[in-house]
Amino acid sequence: MSLEQISCPIAFQQYPQILLAHGGGGRLTHQLISEMFAPAFGMGDRAQQDAVTISLTGQKLAFTTDSYVVKPLFFAGGDIGTLAVNGSVNDLAMVGAKPLYLSAGFILEEGLPMETLWRVVQSMRQAAEIAGVQIVTGDTKVVDRGKGDGIFINTSGIGAIATDLEIAPHSIREGDVILLNGDIGRHGIAIMAAREGLEFETEIQSDCMALADLVMALLEGGVEIHAMRDLTRGGLATSLNELASTANINITIEESAIAVQEDVRAVCEILGLDPLYVANEGRFVAFVPESEVEKAIAIVRSFPEAGGQMRVIGRVGDRGQAIVSMRGQIGVSRILSMLSGEQLPRIC
Amino acid sequence: MSLEQISCPIAFQQYPQILLAHGGGGRLTHQLISEMFAPAFGMGDRAQQDAVTISLTGQKLAFTTDSYVVKPLFFAGGDIGTLAVNGSVNDLAMVGAKPLYLSAGFILEEGLPMETLWRVVQSMRQAAEIAGVQIVTGDTKVVDRGKGDGIFINTSGIGAIATDLEIAPHSIREGDVILLNGDIGRHGIAIMAAREGLEFETEIQSDCMALADLVMALLEGGVEIHAMRDLTRGGLATSLNELASTANINITIEESAIAVQEDVRAVCEILGLDPLYVANEGRFVAFVPESEVEKAIAIVRSFPEAGGQMRVIGRVGDRGQAIVSMRGQIGVSRILSMLSGEQLPRIC
Repeated sequence: MSLEQISCPIAFQQYPQILLAHGGGGRLTHQLISEMFAPAFGMGDRAQQDAVTISLTGQKLAFTTDSYVVKPLFFAGGDIGTLAVNGSVNDLAMVGAKPLYLSAGFILEEGLPMETLWRVVQSMRQAAEIAGVQIVTGDTKVVDRGKGDGIFINTSGIGAIATDLEIAPHSIREGDVILLNGDIGRHGIAIMAAREGLEFETEIQSDCMALADLVMALLEGGVEIHAMRDLTRGGLATSLNELASTANINITIEESAIAVQEDVRAVCEILGLDPLYVANEGRFVAFVPESEVEKAIAIVRSFPEAGGQMRVIGRVGDRGQAIVSMRGQIGVSRILSMLSGEQLPRIC
Repeated sequence: MSLEQISCPIAFQQYPQILLAHGGGGRLTHQLISEMFAPAFGMGDRAQQDAVTISLTGQKLAFTTDSYVVKPLFFAGGDIGTLAVNGSVNDLAMVGAKPLYLSAGFILEEGLPMETLWRVVQSMRQAAEIAGVQIVTGDTKVVDRGKGDGIFINTSGIGAIATDLEIAPHSIREGDVILLNGDIGRHGIAIMAAREGLEFETEIQSDCMALADLVMALLEGGVEIHAMRDLTRGGLATSLNELASTANINITIEESAIAVQEDVRAVCEILGLDPLYVANEGRFVAFVPESEVEKAIAIVRSFPEAGGQMRVIGRVGDRGQAIVSMRGQIGVSRILSMLSGEQLPRIC
C-alpha cells in the first residue's frame, strides 16, 4: 500500500450515506467490507472471515472482533452481555480455535442506570465462565445523552488454533456434506418479540450459546472439518452464500432437513420474515467429507442443547457459479440469494 | 468465581446512573473499574493497565482494547482514525510490546456521509502503515439515526513482548527517575478548539502519534525501563496518580521541567483548564534508574517529533503513601490529586 490517498470507490457514489442495511450482514455490508475496508487495510479474503488466523513465533492464533448494539438490551434467552461473550467465542471456534482471552470495550450512554450495567456485566461474567474464556482487558467510554443507546459492547478475542486442519472456505471440497446443529430463527424472533412487545402463547427463547466446547470435541474426535460458519446476521441463507462465493462452489440444501420451531415459523409468517434469513446465535454449519458424518453426529449428541439436532442439510456441488439453491418439500428448487436489505436491524 | 449473582457494590448506590465522568479517566472511571469490572471479570491489578500480558505456549503477548468516541471526528493534527490506531499501538508499547495486529470495530450512525467514513478509513490505513501494524480483522454495525454519533471505533491490539524486563507499576523502585517525552496538553486543547470553533493565531495541533518505534529503540538500546504510561485521559497528573497508587510509591515532579507550549498555556488559562490534567496522545512517562537517564535521552534524540524534548521531570520517593506532589517554580510544593470530575468529555 502506498501512503497516497485513494479516491472513494465508485460504488459508494450510489450510497452517499450509511444505511441501516450497511450493518445488516447482507449485500451492503459485504460491499462496504470488500470495497472499502479490505482494500484499505490489505485484508484480502480474510476480510470476510469470522476470525483471522495469525502466526506468532510458531504458535497459530485466531483473532476476532465484534461490536454488539442489540436492541433491546435484554430478551428471552439472553442479553447484550451473553451475546457479546458468546458471539466472539463462536467466531473463534468457527476457525478451529479454542477461545482463551476476551477484551471488553463499553460505550455507555450518560444516564444509563447503573443497575442495568451491573446486570449486563454479571451476564458477561457467567457467559465467560461457561465458555471457559477469560475477560482480561477492557475500556469504558461514556457519550452524552442522546448520542448512544444505553450500552454498546465490543469484544475482541484471542484463541489458540487447536487443529492442523485449515478450516476455511477454500478448504471446502466438491461432494462435502453440510451439517447444521439445530433449528433456526429463534434469536432473531426473540429480539423482535422483545422489541415490539409481542406476546405469544409460548415464549420464544434466543438460541444464544457458546459453541466452543462442541467444536473442540469434534476436533478432538478427529472429525475432518473443512469449513464452519455461524449463522448470525443474515441467517443460514446469507452464510451459505458467503461460503459459496468465497470458495467458488455451488451448494444445494434440502428444505425438509431444516428445522424451524412451529412458533418461530408462525411468527415469521405473520411478520413476513423468512427464517432462512433470520439471525441465530448458537447455530453453525460444518462442511465435512461424507465419511465423517456419522462420527460428527455421534460426538455432538453429548451436547444436547448445542448440537442435539445436528443433521445433514445439504451438499456441495460443482465449482464455478457460487449458487446456493434449496430443494423444496415437493421437489421444486429455488435459488437462495444473499440478504439484500436489512431484514432485522440491530439484532446483535 | 461462582455463578451466583453478586449484588451491585454499595458504592454505586451513590451513582444510580452513568455520568460523563465515568468515562473521563478520573476517579469515577477508576471506581467503575475497581468495583465493577475488575471483581466481575477477576482482573485484579491488570484492570488498571493499558494492556495486559498473556502467555501462550511460551510466547509472551500483550493484548489491549480501546473504544474511540472523540468529538468532533476531525481536529488539527489528526482524526478519530489516527487516534484509534495510535491509541492502541501506544497501549501495547507501554508494556514493552511490539504492536503487530489490530482489529477495527465500527459502530456507524445511519446517515453518516460515506465520504466521512472513507476519510477516516484512509487515516487508519496511513497510521497503521506508519506504526508498522496490520489491521487484520474488523466488524461493522449500524445504529439508527440519533442512537449514535457519526462514528465510534474500537481497536484491539496484539503485540509481542520485546523484552525480558517486566514493565509494570510494581517494578518501579525508590529513587527511579521519571522521564517525559515532550510538551503536554496539545491533544486536549486541539479537540476543544475544534469542538468549540475556537480560533487562535497559531493552530494548536494534537500531539497524536505512535510511540512504538521509540519505545522499541529504548528497549533495543538496553535501557532498563521499570514502568511506562501514556498520558491520555486525565493527563500527566492522573497517570502519575494511577502509577503511584498501583505501585504504592510517592512521586515528586518539578514544575519547571514540564514543557507546555505558550499558546496551549494561554488557552488553558482562558478556559480554566490545568494542562497537567489535559489529555495527550503522543506523550508518555518512563520510570528508569538514574544510571539509565543519559542513554535514554540520547536514544530518543533520533525521534525528533516523538521524543526530541525528552527530559527528567521528577523522581520516585518513598513507598507508602502514594502521594504525587509538584514543586513549583518558586519552591513551594502542592499535591496533585487524580482528576475528580470530567474535565473534557469525549477527548478520545
